[in-house]
Amino acid sequence: MAKLIDGKKLAGEITAQLTEEVSRMKEKGIVPGLVVLLVGDNPASQTYVKNKEISAKKIGIHSVVERIPASITEAELLAKIEAYNQDETIHGILVQLPLPKHIDADKVLLAIHPKKDVDGFHPYNMGQLFIGSPDKIPCTPYGIMKMLEAYQIEPEGKKAVVIGRSNIVGKPMAQLLLMQNATVTMTHSRTQDLPAVAREADILVVAIGRGNFVTKEFVKPGAVVIDVGMNRDENGKLIGDVKFDEVEPVAGFITPVPGGVGPMTIAMLMEQTVANARK
Amino acid sequence: MAKLIDGKKLAGEITAQLTEEVSRMKEKGIVPGLVVLLVGDNPASQTYVKNKEISAKKIGIHSVVERIPASITEAELLAKIEAYNQDETIHGILVQLPLPKHIDADKVLLAIHPKKDVDGFHPYNMGQLFIGSPDKIPCTPYGIMKMLEAYQIEPEGKKAVVIGRSNIVGKPMAQLLLMQNATVTMTHSRTQDLPAVAREADILVVAIGRGNFVTKEFVKPGAVVIDVGMNRDENGKLIGDVKFDEVEPVAGFITPVPGGVGPMTIAMLMEQTVANARK
Repeated sequence: MAKLIDGKKLAGEITAQLTEEVSRMKEKGIVPGLVVLLVGDNPASQTYVKNKEISAKKIGIHSVVERIPASITEAELLAKIEAYNQDETIHGILVQLPLPKHIDADKVLLAIHPKKDVDGFHPYNMGQLFIGSPDKIPCTPYGIMKMLEAYQIEPEGKKAVVIGRSNIVGKPMAQLLLMQNATVTMTHSRTQDLPAVAREADILVVAIGRGNFVTKEFVKPGAVVIDVGMNRDENGKLIGDVKFDEVEPVAGFITPVPGGVGPMTIAMLMEQTVANARK
Repeated sequence: MAKLIDGKKLAGEITAQLTEEVSRMKEKGIVPGLVVLLVGDNPASQTYVKNKEISAKKIGIHSVVERIPASITEAELLAKIEAYNQDETIHGILVQLPLPKHIDADKVLLAIHPKKDVDGFHPYNMGQLFIGSPDKIPCTPYGIMKMLEAYQIEPEGKKAVVIGRSNIVGKPMAQLLLMQNATVTMTHSRTQDLPAVAREADILVVAIGRGNFVTKEFVKPGAVVIDVGMNRDENGKLIGDVKFDEVEPVAGFITPVPGGVGPMTIAMLMEQTVANARK
């Protein structure tokens, strides 16, 4: 029986601390500001943005959500971002992905000033993380590191295996674990005999985006299993990348879906916004 | 008996191609320009800079070496770099490291325009590599990828282990191997039972900076062994990080030191300078 890593509870604690901090900031006349730009009407994006808005308001962050029609031109969107770059009341700028096809997402992410890039997706911030001087960190892997810390799981000298190599989860996750002196293996769809490679892991982070992909054959007894997946099964139920019922009896620690990584991602977004206002 | 990966020969071929290309460029009035800034009188740095200068001149690159007294202030050095950023006859700017202690090397590397950063050390270029859209690539790992290609060693699906996690070799090496669909493990001084981890590798890249560190216990029979080390033994002889005599009979391919990775590093610096002039 694995110990459950309760991301929801931990995110709640972090949110409570941030709420206190923001209320103290306001006494000094400082209000952290976060703007979320949502282009088009992707239903999943609307839910994500809504959740971010609720969390920001709860903490006392000045939250601006711009809902923008999909017909906006790239130049118009870039001009909006530049205006927020200049706006001193705004400490964080987030463009919800995906963007409509006629807009170059790379160009848009580059337009956000790195200091206000609270998602940590700007190539400059990615580069700083890569060279071991992180400032803004992609929120999902950052939240995972906070969970490991909270549960006193020490990566140093451990074997960590990351499944999935996305720019916003897998790759920065590997760098953060490396910074904590883990021996890190980056795996993906082309990895040969992935279950055997994963079975080497003391810490297994799964971010491959395929429901119930990781079965007990992937897991060494006692391993820490972190599930980044957010998939829907045939009945529309939210499931992770890890087959929870099967893996939970084998693992030492495991994150649930929902209530694991997801809430921590939002908490880290808030944390980086408040940290920017603090400076 | 391993097959020898002849970096010197391959670098010679690349240099010959570049020489031809530059001579064609000159017919159109384009001369690639490379400036190397050498601060102080570190003897190793002087040798490195001399080798770069010889190679650049051989190819027909307009080569400028500024030998600058160690007493230069940081502001003066930054001003020099900015002048070369603006100078249209210069396509590549390289600041030889290490710098004197009163100068912040990070700040200096940041000052080089990313497009002219032919060493690939700027955080922006590191970030682009990290997210899988490399433009300028650190020359040593770039040269290693060229060697693998020349010897038809296909990383896809292979297990690659990188020993050492420096920003200019180990980390970018891991990303380049990952981009070619290898399963990549990043190891370092805190890795537990490093010989056993290394023995998993089909491709083993050693960049830990300790002479004769990798013995035959680290090497799976038939593995490709790439030695980035440049150390001096007690007699002043140049030796690699790999105990060549012992590993060579076990490995499938191996790079010698000298004549392996070193010449390729310089060839890649020239290649990126010429590529910039080509654009």
